[in-house]
Amino acid sequence: MERTLIGDIPHKKDTEILIEGWVEVRRDHGKLMFLVLRDRSGSVQAMAKDDALEQSQPLREQWVVRVHGIVRERPEEMKKDEQNGDVELHVNSVEILSEAAELPFDMDAELNLDTYLDYLPLTLRTQRARDIFSIQATIVQTFRWALIQRGFIEFQAPALTGGDAEGGGDAFTVAYFNDHTAYLATSPQLYKEIMTGAFERVFTIAKIFRAEKSATTRHLAEVTQMDFEMGFIKDYTDVMKMLEAIMRDVCAAVVKQHADVFARFNTKAPLVPQGAFPVLTLREAQEIINVDTSEPDLEPEHERQICAWAREEHGSDFVFITHFPTHKRAFYSLPDPKNPELSYSFDLLFKGLEINSGSQRFHNHDALVATLKERGLDPKHFEYYLQLHAYGVPPHGGCSTGLERITARMLDLSNVKEAAAFPRDMNRIDSRLSE
Amino acid sequence: MERTLIGDIPHKKDTEILIEGWVEVRRDHGKLMFLVLRDRSGSVQAMAKDDALEQSQPLREQWVVRVHGIVRERPEEMKKDEQNGDVELHVNSVEILSEAAELPFDMDAELNLDTYLDYLPLTLRTQRARDIFSIQATIVQTFRWALIQRGFIEFQAPALTGGDAEGGGDAFTVAYFNDHTAYLATSPQLYKEIMTGAFERVFTIAKIFRAEKSATTRHLAEVTQMDFEMGFIKDYTDVMKMLEAIMRDVCAAVVKQHADVFARFNTKAPLVPQGAFPVLTLREAQEIINVDTSEPDLEPEHERQICAWAREEHGSDFVFITHFPTHKRAFYSLPDPKNPELSYSFDLLFKGLEINSGSQRFHNHDALVATLKERGLDPKHFEYYLQLHAYGVPPHGGCSTGLERITARMLDLSNVKEAAAFPRDMNRIDSRLSE
Repeated sequence: MERTLIGDIPHKKDTEILIEGWVEVRRDHGKLMFLVLRDRSGSVQAMAKDDALEQSQPLREQWVVRVHGIVRERPEEMKKDEQNGDVELHVNSVEILSEAAELPFDMDAELNLDTYLDYLPLTLRTQRARDIFSIQATIVQTFRWALIQRGFIEFQAPALTGGDAEGGGDAFTVAYFNDHTAYLATSPQLYKEIMTGAFERVFTIAKIFRAEKSATTRHLAEVTQMDFEMGFIKDYTDVMKMLEAIMRDVCAAVVKQHADVFARFNTKAPLVPQGAFPVLTLREAQEIINVDTSEPDLEPEHERQICAWAREEHGSDFVFITHFPTHKRAFYSLPDPKNPELSYSFDLLFKGLEINSGSQRFHNHDALVATLKERGLDPKHFEYYLQLHAYGVPPHGGCSTGLERITARMLDLSNVKEAAAFPRDMNRIDSRLSE
Repeated sequence: MERTLIGDIPHKKDTEILIEGWVEVRRDHGKLMFLVLRDRSGSVQAMAKDDALEQSQPLREQWVVRVHGIVRERPEEMKKDEQNGDVELHVNSVEILSEAAELPFDMDAELNLDTYLDYLPLTLRTQRARDIFSIQATIVQTFRWALIQRGFIEFQAPALTGGDAEGGGDAFTVAYFNDHTAYLATSPQLYKEIMTGAFERVFTIAKIFRAEKSATTRHLAEVTQMDFEMGFIKDYTDVMKMLEAIMRDVCAAVVKQHADVFARFNTKAPLVPQGAFPVLTLREAQEIINVDTSEPDLEPEHERQICAWAREEHGSDFVFITHFPTHKRAFYSLPDPKNPELSYSFDLLFKGLEINSGSQRFHNHDALVATLKERGLDPKHFEYYLQLHAYGVPPHGGCSTGLERITARMLDLSNVKEAAAFPRDMNRIDSRLSE
């Protein structure tokens, strides 16, 4: 008999079916046993008695089974408002595919983050984790699709690099061949720009790595960045418009495919304004929340305040901040020609957190070389990359969205680590690192 | 005026348009100049005279321009059978967006691989490179989409790992926090299996890294693997069937979207049989090509011979080889219960090269622990991963396809390095490493 997915059971009333899945719940009632069975498509209640009860006796939570049974409508008064809430599987036979050890905790227990992470092979099976990573998969696929539809082409940016390009000093070192030192990429930026010279519109979903000794709720040692870059822009505002369109597509897809998730996370679908996302210069933002306008960036607390303002004043969970001081942005960010102290740069804040950073880039070779020198960077170290500018590149810009960050804010997770399936930080790679 | 993409010019006859792009060719004819202009959608011939000729004088190859002009039909006898071959842009005005230095070689010169790689920011703009990476983008997007349609969910596998899981000794080491050593993943295998315990069907497009001191035409230090893993399989043949379906989708998409490319590479669209892909056990394959059946694997030359046989006998550019000796496969490969010397494993060969490797995995905890011990691996080092098996995992299996390898074979590239946008090997990270 072919396997029926639990999600297809509504079409199988009064039919004998075969399902395969995990035991999520077992409830003994003497001559009856109730089981909740789960597969990738959902869950259903099963009822075993007589021979089937006998076969079900060994079953415990997380055991893996193959079950034959007949789909029966529940009595009216027993129907529930949930998936398969109007039916029950009357078990004919049970075959055990895998056993499971006794669980170390209840699957619906609220665990502290470290315990949750210690037991990921088990805790990833919780409804909460499955919700988070289902939404994350929708976000990344929609991000890609939205760009492909707009003429962007995907490429694979390298993770191994020959130098710490942005000079931040936060790059991990790798023992490469023949005693060479390689570095882990802190951004796919230079490669993205190089590809723009060939394809005009490109994107990449790339791992980046930060050796920052930071253990905040916003930091991971390895993150997934969704980057795009586009040529022939008027200026940085074309990039912002593209990003806004992509974010609208992403939110629409999440809401459409996961409408039921927000209630489980005690939050609401993101507020996407009908009109354009609000845009503030850094200075305007600082004035609104009454902080020192000489500060070169927003503190986390300020980002939350500005987002509260955008929600209140513009009905938007998104707000752009533009014109960060040039010296605080990476060397490839183009200064505003009217005021070179400020750059053609922007951040996108979402529900209290910066999830994206972008800018227009240099497209003039000599101006870029001069900037490198001004910043104390040696153009020789950038010779490979500078070929892009030497051989003709259009005005271009792009930006980078943190996949874990947008996922975390979408569901109001308090720690970005919960939005990485296998988070790495100072103290952990899978297991905790010894002190 | 809004920019017109060059690919849309056929709809704009006798209209004034604005295009933006690169100068690909410049041909002087005294009072006339012909330019071939390219943007992401294609190319078109432009003709400048009078004032426009004056403005065009400085232009050289790879300069970036904004051009106003009128689309005119070419005289019948001048029409060509190529994109925009029946029209010409009569230039009204030219604005220079970026200049380019004199090129170090002709853009259509046949370069040796090292020169090609030294100048990637320029050489990625060649038709050849754009073809390769356009097809690669189609392959990876189709691979994902084919899996999503079949109930698979994407996840992000980590690149940083705590140990060299497969014990091959080919993992790069990373200086991690607090003097810890981390490793670069040589496979997303263990994470993929862990996710199968939660989502049943998962896939990941993951970077893997090999510190193998090997400089063949088949090796890269950093590669992109397209991995999937599925639970509730009957046995490894379910994985092969899924892979075959995905490969059919991939080939169909490439042929549909890039039909014109094969001729430029002097090759043909892949031969996909109407019936199932041919399947041979390793021993059967060895007998067909008359090599020693005690050898545990096929040599590159043997892979080419078997593929020639499959093409000849089955009209197929794909052929599966199964039942590799258990001791030659990774520890998680399930032995054939009827003959434990051989494993429930397979390779998929495509046009002379192994592009995919897969197997059914252990789902019984105690059997896996016994196998680890037999292989001299310490189960303690796998405690984190073994939770998967301790807490109930269905029979499952999966496989891994090399993106660069399938791309290279699709176009009969002689070196897999050409199929990585930014290839890393023993001697190169972007630039050549000093000896």
